[in-house]
Amino acid sequence: MSQPVFQAVETNAPQSLAKLKEFLRIPSVSAKPDHAGECKRCAEWLAAEIRSTGLWTKIVPTKGHPIVLAGNQPQAGRPTVLFYGHYDVQPPEPLDQWLSPPFEPTERDGGLYARGAADDKGQVWCHVEAIRAWQANGGLPVNIIMVIEGEEEIGSDNLETFLREYASQLKADVAVISDTNQFARGIPAITYGLRGLVYMEVIVTGPSHDLHSGMFGGSVPNPANVLSAMLATLHDRDDRVNIPGFYDDVVALTKVERDAWAKLGFDDKQAMQELSLPGLTGEIGFTTLERRWARPTCDINGLTSGYQGPGAKTIIPAKASAKVSMRLVPNQDPKKIQAAFELAMKSRCPSTVTLEFRNFGASPAIVVPIDGKAIKLAGAAVRTGFGAEPVFMREGGSIPVVGQIKTILGIDTLLVGFGLPDDRVHSPNEKFDLDAFHKGMRTAAALYGELAGL
Amino acid sequence: MSQPVFQAVETNAPQSLAKLKEFLRIPSVSAKPDHAGECKRCAEWLAAEIRSTGLWTKIVPTKGHPIVLAGNQPQAGRPTVLFYGHYDVQPPEPLDQWLSPPFEPTERDGGLYARGAADDKGQVWCHVEAIRAWQANGGLPVNIIMVIEGEEEIGSDNLETFLREYASQLKADVAVISDTNQFARGIPAITYGLRGLVYMEVIVTGPSHDLHSGMFGGSVPNPANVLSAMLATLHDRDDRVNIPGFYDDVVALTKVERDAWAKLGFDDKQAMQELSLPGLTGEIGFTTLERRWARPTCDINGLTSGYQGPGAKTIIPAKASAKVSMRLVPNQDPKKIQAAFELAMKSRCPSTVTLEFRNFGASPAIVVPIDGKAIKLAGAAVRTGFGAEPVFMREGGSIPVVGQIKTILGIDTLLVGFGLPDDRVHSPNEKFDLDAFHKGMRTAAALYGELAGL
Repeated sequence: MSQPVFQAVETNAPQSLAKLKEFLRIPSVSAKPDHAGECKRCAEWLAAEIRSTGLWTKIVPTKGHPIVLAGNQPQAGRPTVLFYGHYDVQPPEPLDQWLSPPFEPTERDGGLYARGAADDKGQVWCHVEAIRAWQANGGLPVNIIMVIEGEEEIGSDNLETFLREYASQLKADVAVISDTNQFARGIPAITYGLRGLVYMEVIVTGPSHDLHSGMFGGSVPNPANVLSAMLATLHDRDDRVNIPGFYDDVVALTKVERDAWAKLGFDDKQAMQELSLPGLTGEIGFTTLERRWARPTCDINGLTSGYQGPGAKTIIPAKASAKVSMRLVPNQDPKKIQAAFELAMKSRCPSTVTLEFRNFGASPAIVVPIDGKAIKLAGAAVRTGFGAEPVFMREGGSIPVVGQIKTILGIDTLLVGFGLPDDRVHSPNEKFDLDAFHKGMRTAAALYGELAGL
Repeated sequence: MSQPVFQAVETNAPQSLAKLKEFLRIPSVSAKPDHAGECKRCAEWLAAEIRSTGLWTKIVPTKGHPIVLAGNQPQAGRPTVLFYGHYDVQPPEPLDQWLSPPFEPTERDGGLYARGAADDKGQVWCHVEAIRAWQANGGLPVNIIMVIEGEEEIGSDNLETFLREYASQLKADVAVISDTNQFARGIPAITYGLRGLVYMEVIVTGPSHDLHSGMFGGSVPNPANVLSAMLATLHDRDDRVNIPGFYDDVVALTKVERDAWAKLGFDDKQAMQELSLPGLTGEIGFTTLERRWARPTCDINGLTSGYQGPGAKTIIPAKASAKVSMRLVPNQDPKKIQAAFELAMKSRCPSTVTLEFRNFGASPAIVVPIDGKAIKLAGAAVRTGFGAEPVFMREGGSIPVVGQIKTILGIDTLLVGFGLPDDRVHSPNEKFDLDAFHKGMRTAAALYGELAGL
């Protein structure tokens, strides 16, 4: 490990934080069509910053938001690392719950609060600054290719086409992603498994317009009543997902994994306190970590129908819709699960209304082997960066690109994440821990050093 | 019947329409706290207009929106009529479905389109113009007291207090309300029954903030899942309301009524076409008219939870809420039904979330006798005004004041309505038929003449 590189990271720390704040001020919300200009601006800003470290950059247009591609001059005889990240962020709503504006990064209680702070701008920034430090001290010791996309939060629809088109330029020995968490404060982690995702919108339409609930109530199908009844069928009494075929391909957890996870000492009571919940719940027969990391789910993410303002409005709504997403575990096929979901909903929908679906993403779960050389080097880098032994864990979230990198490019991915479980990613008051930012930059710097030995 | 009065109605018709448009331009949306000023302005405008006919007026403040009180100088030896109407309107949302702005009254295809056109400003206006015509031709032949409130659409919360406080000034032989419909175009009606209403909001709260559905999904209670499951229990397979005790006090329809309604020749197919519905539905064993007029209901009027914007946001929402209203039939006690609803929801709610209720109105159903002298005189007035024989019908809507007028003041109400079933009240593109407006003014004029003989 190169000591001057570490020193450069330390010396640059104030500017690094200032630059991250610039990054976070750009509201690159990929889900909102009217934010397309901000996404483009964010890509251009990011490319310019990466270029300032001495790498070449290219902004690759897609049917959606552009991809930032970058790299150094490859040198024969040394390993190539493919770095993936995303510059897009989740919508900030509900706005009234933010203690400081979502796109005005604010330091508070040791954290930097902003939408995208941890997911994923802050973690991408750890790598940009690590690269800057290496480049200022003799250059990166590996060949690097960076792919930073703008559609991760909306299903990475255009990434697959890009990976196929640019496959010959993306050949690498290992991929690196920092878009996951530490296990807890002081316990850094390497993540070896992620859940997949199928995200659907279900739309039930009844009468052509809202109707007076007195004049018509009781004699016409009410789309909100119908939708609620359909959604209620999605779970059985044991909180198992009630869609025929849903569990058919699920691989059972091994005793080794269950034992290892039990030893991590997850505290249900503390989780309840942190979330202000009177109780945890979930599929019968599994622990909280098992439910989060290794069991598939079906959750309503949003409901919309009829009158939502203050007071009373007596209508039969013309329409009701729900956003419903399913987290998948290894061996579940997203396309098969999507089809099973649609079939179940269709079969449970009365003929007095019309039913439509929209899909916003379908990606499989992944599990990477934990006994390879690269993952050992990553473990050493985390140890150097954090000064603590990492644990090996899975996560419940989804990073669809990991599966695509494996399928299309044939490359395994190292998931070396710097977030904390209480970072409130996707929620109001998202933050990135300032200590994690600092140790993340160190870990990224160490990682490129270690991977030179691959 | 006084011929000059009819002629005055005819002569004034253009100004009457212009004045009604002025009335409709005031967005007196009682449900919205920020529209309180508009409600006050509407009351003041209306009082000034009534004063211009020669009646005295008084604006009575309440804890909510003010009440317009008006009258002529009572003369001994002639009947007293209590007129009730409301100047408040439903919220106009969803705005994007209006073909012309809701508060810019627009004539189109024989109708006047605006929020409140039929419910109830247009119908109130028929009476104001009828009174103006009488006053210009020797004066009204009856003593009149007018009560026009501003909170009908939000449960008439402050009306009861007013009726009790002013009871001594509100003594009358009969009450008149025009806030109901004709049976169909060309078939005017006297309405002798209305359903009651209990309007609730159900709020389920889970975690203290929205959570990432990947990191937490499957291990925490999802308020949207919980709420959907609870709402789904509100009906059984036969579309009967599934709340213990709900039907206990319901009085069965008589064979006489069922036969009379069957003869009205309601056309299910035509109703489906008008509403663009693939099918009608409702409680098993009843016709459409019976379901609308004489059976209690439970309908979701609005659903809100989580992310409702475009695309995907992967969250477990912190909160989910539903507006749910029940239409009641004679003999059901609103307080008892509200309690039964809350008890059912509580008993079906898991202990892992918190549950709250809000109430926005509770009023009983009413049925008025159809063999009295006043209702016969009203029938004669409708015959004169519309040139057609009225039918006697019930309606599914609720006008809570009818019950209060009976209970507090001991007065029966004549429901003489000029709306049409396709007026889209409470919906986008509400209208008042211009022919109905014209015949409504004639009928109101005839009614005050007839009631002089009470």
